[in-house]
Amino acid sequence: MTVQENPKITDIGSLGKNALIQRLTEGFTAKNKSTVIGLGNDASAVGQGKTKTVVGTAMMVEGIHFDMTYTPLQHLGYKAVALAVSNIVAMNALPRQIMVSLAVSSRYSVEALDELFAGIRRFCQRYDTDLTGCDLCSSVAGLTLSVTAIGEADKARITGCGGAKVHDLLCASGDFGSAYAGLLILEREKATYKGNPQFQPDFSSHEYVLERFLKPEPRTDIVKWLADNDIVPTSMTNVADGLADAAMHLCQESHCGCEIYEERIPIDYGTSHVCSDFGTNMLPVSLALNGGMDNELLFSISQSDYEKIKACPNIAIIGHITEQNRGAIMVTPQNTAIQLKSQGRSPAETAVQ
Amino acid sequence: MTVQENPKITDIGSLGKNALIQRLTEGFTAKNKSTVIGLGNDASAVGQGKTKTVVGTAMMVEGIHFDMTYTPLQHLGYKAVALAVSNIVAMNALPRQIMVSLAVSSRYSVEALDELFAGIRRFCQRYDTDLTGCDLCSSVAGLTLSVTAIGEADKARITGCGGAKVHDLLCASGDFGSAYAGLLILEREKATYKGNPQFQPDFSSHEYVLERFLKPEPRTDIVKWLADNDIVPTSMTNVADGLADAAMHLCQESHCGCEIYEERIPIDYGTSHVCSDFGTNMLPVSLALNGGMDNELLFSISQSDYEKIKACPNIAIIGHITEQNRGAIMVTPQNTAIQLKSQGRSPAETAVQ
Repeated sequence: MTVQENPKITDIGSLGKNALIQRLTEGFTAKNKSTVIGLGNDASAVGQGKTKTVVGTAMMVEGIHFDMTYTPLQHLGYKAVALAVSNIVAMNALPRQIMVSLAVSSRYSVEALDELFAGIRRFCQRYDTDLTGCDLCSSVAGLTLSVTAIGEADKARITGCGGAKVHDLLCASGDFGSAYAGLLILEREKATYKGNPQFQPDFSSHEYVLERFLKPEPRTDIVKWLADNDIVPTSMTNVADGLADAAMHLCQESHCGCEIYEERIPIDYGTSHVCSDFGTNMLPVSLALNGGMDNELLFSISQSDYEKIKACPNIAIIGHITEQNRGAIMVTPQNTAIQLKSQGRSPAETAVQ
Repeated sequence: MTVQENPKITDIGSLGKNALIQRLTEGFTAKNKSTVIGLGNDASAVGQGKTKTVVGTAMMVEGIHFDMTYTPLQHLGYKAVALAVSNIVAMNALPRQIMVSLAVSSRYSVEALDELFAGIRRFCQRYDTDLTGCDLCSSVAGLTLSVTAIGEADKARITGCGGAKVHDLLCASGDFGSAYAGLLILEREKATYKGNPQFQPDFSSHEYVLERFLKPEPRTDIVKWLADNDIVPTSMTNVADGLADAAMHLCQESHCGCEIYEERIPIDYGTSHVCSDFGTNMLPVSLALNGGMDNELLFSISQSDYEKIKACPNIAIIGHITEQNRGAIMVTPQNTAIQLKSQGRSPAETAVQ
């Protein structure tokens, strides 16, 4: 009945995710004095006092971000909250509250939702976070979770994506590619199981990568360590869609380039093990750059903080910030410069689809 | 592969929405001193200073909350934001920022999303609200919108659901049942159109109820009027799932009862007109009590504010607060007391399904 007369129809897949967001949000400018940090960052920072409120969100859609064949509901509840909290952690803030909304189909029982909330409860206990909101609605198909995480940070410590300066050091927490490696194992076992329902999946020796995919943790430990050591990063972002996407995002928002040294990218043995399982065509560094779902922090610090940062066993210095015209590149051990490319969306999504 | 051994399977439809939320959130207690108002309210109030940050959310799922056959995308964007903002307005706060997340299937074009964001832009301009976050992901089917609204209010003015006292006056903004009346018209015309695609829908004389459903407005005017007149309600909630559900919710959270006078419930002529169109079985008061989607405020004030409130043309005094053991009742013009019943979920959802 609504007649849509639209001469031009552009497929949403034809723009990358980042380009599409940029197009949709073009011209929106912040006017309120309580808006401290907004569009282009992992979360919003708002408020009028010295301590700012930081608000971040995460949405998880069944069939896109998770597959109920192999996702324990407790882990799913935990993970949805962890992803939202990771977005405020990436602003150098610590979580205080979460609000959870679910769209749920009648396929799910009350007991299934009990399980989901057991995971949310476990997260809240572990990270001293209060559940302050819960809403439910129906869904035509499957389960969608939307989590809003609220945290706080001193204004002087809040870190957005846009402050990296030339010669800053580029640092990363944890390791990269392991969550995607976990997803590959789960998808492989699922495919085998479909062919033979008597099949018993074999997850031995893959515990680490499976946990990385199914139950990620927000890096509040890094935020606390940085505060304890009096370091304020110049820029920071959550690595959600691969290291390449995160590095390019920091560079774009900070109007700079970066050089990442391939041999400095932290890759767990478990990830390499999965790659060798899958054959020679799969390189661990490709998973690290493009895998997604790592839920780690990528951030830049001033060179003057080098001595402090090198003492932290949980942070790796993987490169440095350069002039914008150099672009975002990775330097191989053979000294070849490779231009980083963003997949624009998480390959994990594609894989689950 | 994940073996779910669950001896008891309870259908989620067997508990009402409110009872299910209560079950899932049982035992969650707030521990952070920055948590001011949490579970059981329309939004969260957080922060350490005198001015608190208020955070509310809303989720809209295609096929449940909206039907693309008759929903203009601009209106949809506007409405999704209006619903989230209404939840913070119901805490007696004013909106400052919004964050939007979309899960979108490939059926939607870039131009369709442009339309959606034109509606969001219009809302932001009208309500001086900054868009501070935007995220996109894929969806298996249809469109899901999740909006987080952020606002602020002085700690002394923030109003939750739990403060109503016996003898307080029960007040309401706007009118009730009209949004649901609008939905009935849209569904009727859709059904006729399906039977005869040459059919031209007739919306004449129903403009008001259609606008109430398709493009609701948050009642920031009421929040401002209350502040200008130095009135702090003792309790307040957003009427999202019908007046009965809202009244029962206030009573439950405030441990009180209420009496609503049927002839005092504001019902627009347009709503009555729809009811007479649909036949004698449909009573305007039923739509007001159970219709849902009205997006109006229900609140209680101290009797000492009576003189001030009766001067406001946009607020109706519809009843008063009683002892808890009286329950939540409606008194008819014939002086019959009818116990209010909550549908537990929006009938609008059921109708769209």
